[in-house]
Amino acid sequence: MEKNPLINITYGMYLIGSKYKEKYSGMIATTVCQTTSEPETITVAINKNNYTHGIIEKSKKINVSILSKESNFELIGKFGFKTSETEDKLVGVNYVIGKNDIPVVITDMIAFVEAKVIGSFDAGTHTIFLAKVTNSENINSDLEPMTYEYYHTVIKGKSPKNASTYSLNSQENKEEEFNKYKCQDCGYVYSELDGDQKRKIKEGTKFEDLPETWSCPVCGATKETFKKL
Amino acid sequence: MEKNPLINITYGMYLIGSKYKEKYSGMIATTVCQTTSEPETITVAINKNNYTHGIIEKSKKINVSILSKESNFELIGKFGFKTSETEDKLVGVNYVIGKNDIPVVITDMIAFVEAKVIGSFDAGTHTIFLAKVTNSENINSDLEPMTYEYYHTVIKGKSPKNASTYSLNSQENKEEEFNKYKCQDCGYVYSELDGDQKRKIKEGTKFEDLPETWSCPVCGATKETFKKL
Repeated sequence: MEKNPLINITYGMYLIGSKYKEKYSGMIATTVCQTTSEPETITVAINKNNYTHGIIEKSKKINVSILSKESNFELIGKFGFKTSETEDKLVGVNYVIGKNDIPVVITDMIAFVEAKVIGSFDAGTHTIFLAKVTNSENINSDLEPMTYEYYHTVIKGKSPKNASTYSLNSQENKEEEFNKYKCQDCGYVYSELDGDQKRKIKEGTKFEDLPETWSCPVCGATKETFKKL
Repeated sequence: MEKNPLINITYGMYLIGSKYKEKYSGMIATTVCQTTSEPETITVAINKNNYTHGIIEKSKKINVSILSKESNFELIGKFGFKTSETEDKLVGVNYVIGKNDIPVVITDMIAFVEAKVIGSFDAGTHTIFLAKVTNSENINSDLEPMTYEYYHTVIKGKSPKNASTYSLNSQENKEEEFNKYKCQDCGYVYSELDGDQKRKIKEGTKFEDLPETWSCPVCGATKETFKKL
């Protein structure tokens, strides 16, 4: 099948946070751009179905943490595939309180930006928020930004991210006798080749041999939620 | 000096083209995002001072070519640092005519997108155009997208872009006895270490030894326009 030409547009990965009254909401987004430099403004496109969308509309505040290549799959899974409506995503995560009183996640982040919404633009399924930067700080400026391409090929691909020999072809060859199963709720992929280190499931463990009590290490869904790839 | 945290936002590199009546205008931009998938829309932020801005406002059409790592500095220099008001940028460049009758540059491009403006949003110095994708095609889908980071560190840095040994440190060591001079008009950097292959100026040629008739290989500015870095 031919690739969609639009997949060649390059994106970074960002953790968007906002808070209205006592309710914090956070999510992962790719569509963050600096739009003007005088004054410094950014645009962020958010799906209207996302819980964070409503919180931003009410608070008019957006904090953006810029993910690095060190950012792990669990953090992305939590902020990317669960909803803040029912989950307190700040539990177990390092954060600071920004000058605008909104929490900012800092674990493995390069930098963060605090911004005040000064305009919004209806784009159908999404709203584009235009926001003026009120504060920005470096956290680990030696780290490299995570791109969506890197997330898709290295992190989600479950390859050792620092392996200099990383290659899609050799990976495919090794995997011939092992299968992968995908969580239909959050997208996590269980690879029989890799096992599940978090739960001490050894490399090479067949999906059918996983205990029935095993659940998705990212979103907690049951074994039945998985489909063979 | 501390880095501006906002430089860690990731961008690709895009050639934006439009045409109104008989006038074609093209430029380089970084702020292109897919915004929605149903229908497929993109947003493009353009500085109001840019000649292409006025052409897009009148034609309501935007064609985007997605640059690859093979895209050369001369093309970027021409489309990024000159104005279409006085220059026919299509001379010497490979292009096709899109289904929307707007030329699309294809040299070293991965893919292109044709889009119709369906909304615009005033963001101060820039306008954000929201445009519906009317056609998109792959050109060289095996190539990798050029990121702004890659342009900045590899292309503009004048290092051999395919060198696996590329390293900022070793580069700096080698350059100790050579200097660099920057064109104040377009940003091209003459490196004494590299010379100017286009004009058959040998590697290691000192700036002061360049003929007085030598001019910037990107924008044609005179030798006086250069400043030592």
